[in-house]
Amino acid sequence: MKAAIRELFRWSVRVYYEDTDAGGVVYYANYLKFLERARTEWLDSLGFSPITLERDHNAVFVVHRLEIEYRRPARLGDLLDVTLSLAERGRCRLVALQDATLGKTLLVTARVTLACIDRRNWRPLRLPPLLAATLNAPAIEEIA
Amino acid sequence: MKAAIRELFRWSVRVYYEDTDAGGVVYYANYLKFLERARTEWLDSLGFSPITLERDHNAVFVVHRLEIEYRRPARLGDLLDVTLSLAERGRCRLVALQDATLGKTLLVTARVTLACIDRRNWRPLRLPPLLAATLNAPAIEEIA
Amino acid sequence: MKAAIRELFRWSVRVYYEDTDAGGVVYYANYLKFLERARTEWLDSLGFSPITLERDHNAVFVVHRLEIEYRRPARLGDLLDVTLSLAERGRCRLVALQDATLGKTLLVTARVTLACIDRRNWRPLRLPPLLAATLNAPAIEEIA
Amino acid sequence: MKAAIRELFRWSVRVYYEDTDAGGVVYYANYLKFLERARTEWLDSLGFSPITLERDHNAVFVVHRLEIEYRRPARLGDLLDVTLSLAERGRCRLVALQDATLGKTLLVTARVTLACIDRRNWRPLRLPPLLAATLNAPAIEEIA
Repeated sequence: MKAAIRELFRWSVRVYYEDTDAGGVVYYANYLKFLERARTEWLDSLGFSPITLERDHNAVFVVHRLEIEYRRPARLGDLLDVTLSLAERGRCRLVALQDATLGKTLLVTARVTLACIDRRNWRPLRLPPLLAATLNAPAIEEIA
Repeated sequence: MKAAIRELFRWSVRVYYEDTDAGGVVYYANYLKFLERARTEWLDSLGFSPITLERDHNAVFVVHRLEIEYRRPARLGDLLDVTLSLAERGRCRLVALQDATLGKTLLVTARVTLACIDRRNWRPLRLPPLLAATLNAPAIEEIA
Repeated sequence: MKAAIRELFRWSVRVYYEDTDAGGVVYYANYLKFLERARTEWLDSLGFSPITLERDHNAVFVVHRLEIEYRRPARLGDLLDVTLSLAERGRCRLVALQDATLGKTLLVTARVTLACIDRRNWRPLRLPPLLAATLNAPAIEEIA
Repeated sequence: MKAAIRELFRWSVRVYYEDTDAGGVVYYANYLKFLERARTEWLDSLGFSPITLERDHNAVFVVHRLEIEYRRPARLGDLLDVTLSLAERGRCRLVALQDATLGKTLLVTARVTLACIDRRNWRPLRLPPLLAATLNAPAIEEIA
């Protein structure tokens, strides 16, 4: 079970002009787009798209908290690897560790707390059981 | 009535890092954001916000067609004037002429065709009568 | 030679939350990002990245003019095909026809005029000869 | 001197379609744009624009670290107050506390660490003395 935590999902992102700013590097807010693309593709790889989550489970994942550190800049044309590993799984939330790397160079590292909410009233919602079963990570209670 | 067409709405836009790209200038897609800000503020100045249009009239304006010419680049820190004048008013659409200028220099010029649609079925919707009355521009039929 | 004009470059684009707006569809300016991704990948497939164009040829392509028609909206999760075919080739410019489709449904169609400029002075620059040779499309003069 | 820390800079931001996503609320990355607009206007109010910082001092401020908590969503048309107060001042960095509020409701709260870097080599640079003098906040050393 602990192994599951270390499983790494990987998604490639190309840097286009749209992502850069006049400093010649990727604009700091745009890494959050890259991180979310990886999260979406990770959920999709588990069989849960934003569309099915909302339609079948009334569930939407929203970012509740984010800590991000910018170590080195990415530049136009770079092909980045964005990674995700699950750090915690609570009843209504997930915590993901995410990086952006260029080759072996770490550019950005982030810790993202996602809340699962009910799209009908924006209140916390238990993770859909099917998804919870798929995420064979230890629950937060087990960690703490 | 003809005079109304030449009435010019003006909205100021500051260029921040978010708007620029690695070429050192405003990214071409971002001018469309500037143009829409001016359109929203123009409608708002007439008493019609996106919120009230949708809630009270089931109406949403969507861009159906856009022609835009990029003449000179805008740069970080520039304070642009974005203008709007109404060129045509149809039953279900508006055509706006919009510019972005820096001082007396014309940077971008655009012609934007907006369709009024019913948010419940995305079909064409007549302009809300109150709005149509406010826009004392000649209807398309009168021009053609 | 005429055949070259009809050659179609194709690039896939997934629609993420970042691309959508409160209307539930892709925000109109964001299609311009999709179009540019396809243009960049097309040039890249011919051996010319933005980086090499600038470094080896002092050349930057900027959009000089754009006409775009929005026919149907794209939505969260859609996997779009963005296409490009070269319509014209001048001394210092290219005209590309670009579409975005979802399956067989045409969503957006655009005509994009790109100017090749010298990055040192932002003045028109002849297409790099290697690129011009690669683009075996008839020159504008031959068409007109 | 301590009072300076509690001085609050305030900047208004209107939420447009460009800022929202298909969830009907402001997209999480876009708050980072709002935060940066307020930082830019704050520096500008002290007499230091990105342009003058770079041209006169070779200085660029980049975000090195960000912690952000999303408490309540902002929606289309909302007029937000984005605030900034300086929490720390180091030799080569600043730490800003920033909020986004709607009326009296706190939506987003962030702690942003800015590094001052030399634009010529992307290495840490001492704060321009004029700016340091203007920021009459206690230096980090004094706090710790």
